[in-house]
This record gives sequence, structure tokens and C-alpha cells, in this order.
Amino acid sequence: MTAQEKLKNRIEKKYHICIGLDSDVNKIPQHLLKFNNPILEFNKRIIESTIDSAAAYKINFAFYESWGIEGIKTLEQTIDFIGDDVVIIADAKRGDIGNTSLKYAESIFNHFRCDAVTLHPYMGIDSIEPFINYTDKISFILGLTSNKSSADFEKQILSSGKFLYQEVIEKTNEWNINNNCGLVFGATNISELKENIPSFNEMPILLPGVGAQGGSLEEVVSTFYQNNKNNFIINISRGLIYIDETESFDKSVKNKLLELNQQIAKLLM
Amino acid sequence: MTAQEKLKNRIEKKYHICIGLDSDVNKIPQHLLKFNNPILEFNKRIIESTIDSAAAYKINFAFYESWGIEGIKTLEQTIDFIGDDVVIIADAKRGDIGNTSLKYAESIFNHFRCDAVTLHPYMGIDSIEPFINYTDKISFILGLTSNKSSADFEKQILSSGKFLYQEVIEKTNEWNINNNCGLVFGATNISELKENIPSFNEMPILLPGVGAQGGSLEEVVSTFYQNNKNNFIINISRGLIYIDETESFDKSVKNKLLELNQQIAKLLM
Repeated sequence: MTAQEKLKNRIEKKYHICIGLDSDVNKIPQHLLKFNNPILEFNKRIIESTIDSAAAYKINFAFYESWGIEGIKTLEQTIDFIGDDVVIIADAKRGDIGNTSLKYAESIFNHFRCDAVTLHPYMGIDSIEPFINYTDKISFILGLTSNKSSADFEKQILSSGKFLYQEVIEKTNEWNINNNCGLVFGATNISELKENIPSFNEMPILLPGVGAQGGSLEEVVSTFYQNNKNNFIINISRGLIYIDETESFDKSVKNKLLELNQQIAKLLM
Repeated sequence: MTAQEKLKNRIEKKYHICIGLDSDVNKIPQHLLKFNNPILEFNKRIIESTIDSAAAYKINFAFYESWGIEGIKTLEQTIDFIGDDVVIIADAKRGDIGNTSLKYAESIFNHFRCDAVTLHPYMGIDSIEPFINYTDKISFILGLTSNKSSADFEKQILSSGKFLYQEVIEKTNEWNINNNCGLVFGATNISELKENIPSFNEMPILLPGVGAQGGSLEEVVSTFYQNNKNNFIINISRGLIYIDETESFDKSVKNKLLELNQQIAKLLM
């Protein structure tokens, strides 16, 4: 199955929550520390309890790279455990000159076998092209991010009157000839979301920023609904995977996910 | 020694060539394939023959990540082999929201023990701060890159009349309160280099793009010389490490480096 098909299957069921596996040994339930690999154990239980109802998984590469080879092994094992039915987004935020981006694309799509990736637009199409040459994968380009300092550059006004992030959205639309581009758009920017949603066209939108960062799930969903669009996934990491520190954390995460799915389905009715 | 001291020591000797270890098993001398780990063998020989006369090493993370755990091991072993006397730049082009950039910074500075890193500015100061909190390391922010599509966004004109990359340079200067910021400025942009060099102030400049990408070493060096600046390093990767396919490739690379050093010293006289 292509990444596009996998995502479509989930969205058709009104599953819009992407589970962010920002798994940190200092934040997982402490009883897991008795296991040989606590992070892998944590990820497996989260995945087992959510795989039927998640829209996608987003793996934050930084959290695995930061502990070296063991982290990379755990990343690989986590990806294996998720399997082939649901989109795995490598949240790696890569972007480099052509021959180097080609290596990053090989790394993420061939070696780690992820379905999608997040990419920095700063260096332009040369840095994106090696990724979008994989037509059965999805490349999510950073449009407007969820952090405060997105104002530093993303919200700079160009001489054309557009914001920089709007120029990124426009160019991403141009690059989307194979229907394999998407955008990252922070859920903390609701007014910008309302203003720019028509320019997303049919591209899938990955929205971080709900939960720990303060974005509103209800406002995001309503905005897509009001614009007759459903091609969006809302990432929740810390606000979902760490809600319970007890031995039954996996059940709590599952229940929370089902609750969010219900809430979203209701908003989309 | 801090990264700043290591770099200063080399630049005082008029060593300005940063050796880019974009080591690719398809491009290294083929007789090395008989070794257990041809890339490690290649890197070791390059390092052994150049360590006394290089300004720095730049390790292109993509080339190691793309072969998974074995690649990461080789990355670690290469860093160990370089040792503590010369700046190791993690050319990783990272940048994410604060808590994630913190993990990337831990990865690059604590786990891999690199002295410097390259960073995407797109997401603003939140994404840079966790790196520049390491005051004895150098964070090279992407200003104007060497690739053609730097025109897509970096050369967009802002409503202020400045180019986006100039706004990045300005903000990087503001962030540089601990003298640990630097800039990446592509050697393929000579007219922009001449125009913007005064705005670099005392920051170290990493210039890729000489060699395979077509930038002129002579023009870069002359521009710094004419502006009474010497805080620059010119990265050469493919144009240096792959110049000889024979068994004595390491001697050829050494000779080429010494020749480049002489050429630069002459231009700086």
C-alpha cells in the first residue's frame, strides 16, 4: 500500500489523531524501567493499544538519535512493530543539498522504511526533490510551525505582501504534481489556519501543537469541517502518551484516543 | 579546549580547509572493499594523512545514517579517531521545536561529542537556543546556501527590502552573545559574499560549494583578505576526498590539502 492509501483508509474512518512517539526514558511510567529496553516496551504497549484507531504514528527521530546506536535499534524495532498498515511519519525535519538529501531520503524511506517525512523548506526544491521522487511516500514540508518563534522568519512579510510561510505553501503546491506533498501547519495558529486553508488544496496537513503546546483540537477540526476538508491529521505526543504513570497506562492512552476520535467524529457530523 | 579555541589554533596557522567526510562506499577507492568496514578504513586513512593540516572536519550525517546502525557505529568510530584537537562539525542541518532541538543538541554535542553543528533557521530562535546554550560549541546557522534553489526562499525579498538570508544573518548576530554562532554561506555566491561580508562581524563562516559545486577558492579567500577577516573555513568534500582511486589515495589527498593550504596562505599574504 502507498502512504497515500494508508492515510486515506484511516481518514475515511474519521481517525485523525497521529500519535507522536516522543518517547523519553525520564517521562515514561517508571515501572517500565525494569525491562531490558524500557522505551521499546513503552512504545510496543502504546502501539498495541492504539494501532486500530490511530491515523498515523509520528516518530520524533531526535528522541532516538540522542542515545546513539541503542536508540537507532529501538527506532528500527518500533517501526517493525507498527508494521505496514498505518502511516509512519519520520519526524526528522531534514533538508540539504541534492546529493545529501538523496542520502537522507534513502535513510528514511529505504533503510527505516517510513511512509512519510517532515522537511525544512529553507534550501528550496533541490533539498526537497530527492524525497518527492518517492511518489508512494508523503513529504510534509514545514509551512507554519507551532512554536512561538515561527514569527522570526516564517511570518516575515515578503515584498509581494505574502508571508514567507505562504510562499512555502504556494511552492509546495507547485511541487505536488505526484500528490505526495503535504504541509506541517501548527495548530497554535488558528487564525492563520482559517485564512490559509483554501490554499492547502488536496494536500494532507499534519498539525502539531494540540495538547502540551496549547492548540485547540476543536477549533482545528471545526475549521477543516467548515471548509469541507478532511485531509488532516492532528499530532499529539506528550498530551497523550504520558497521561498515566500507572501500570495500565496503555489502557488509559487507548481510552483517551477513543475519546478524541469520538469528539472529532462528532465535530465532523 | 573549546570549539572556538580549536578553530582559532588552526586558523592562526592559516589552515582554512575543512575536509568534508561525505564518505560513500560507491565512490571510495575500490581496493578498500576488502576491509571489514571500508568506509571506516577510508576515513581513517584520510584523517591520518590530513589531521595536522586541516582546519576542521565536517561529517555529513546523512551519509552515515543512510546505512543504519553500522553507519552510526562508523560515525562514532570516525569521531573517536579524529580525537580532540581539531573541530568536528556535525553537518546534520537540524532544527525543531525547543524540547526536540534539546534532544538533537544532546545527541550531537553529548552523545557524538562533536564541536559544532549546522542548523536550519526556518523555525526561529526556539529551534536554535538549545544548541547555543552550549557556549563552548559552535552553531553554524544556514545563511545563504550553495545550491541553486537557495533562490526559492533564501533569496526572497522581504518587505524591509532585505533578502531573507540577510534577515537570518542579522538575527544570528543578535543570538551571538556568547560568541558561539557561525554562518553557512555558499561559496557559489561570490557577489553576495562580497556584499554581506561586513555583516558577518566576528562570526566564523563555513563555506561549502568550492569544488564539485563550482565555487572559486581564490575568490573566497581574496574576499575575506580584502575585508581584513580570517575567520572562515572552506569545506571541500567530493573535490578532495575522491581525487585518487589508487592505493595511495591518502597521500594524494594530503598533497592536495598542502597545495590548497599553500595557495590560501599566498592569497592571505
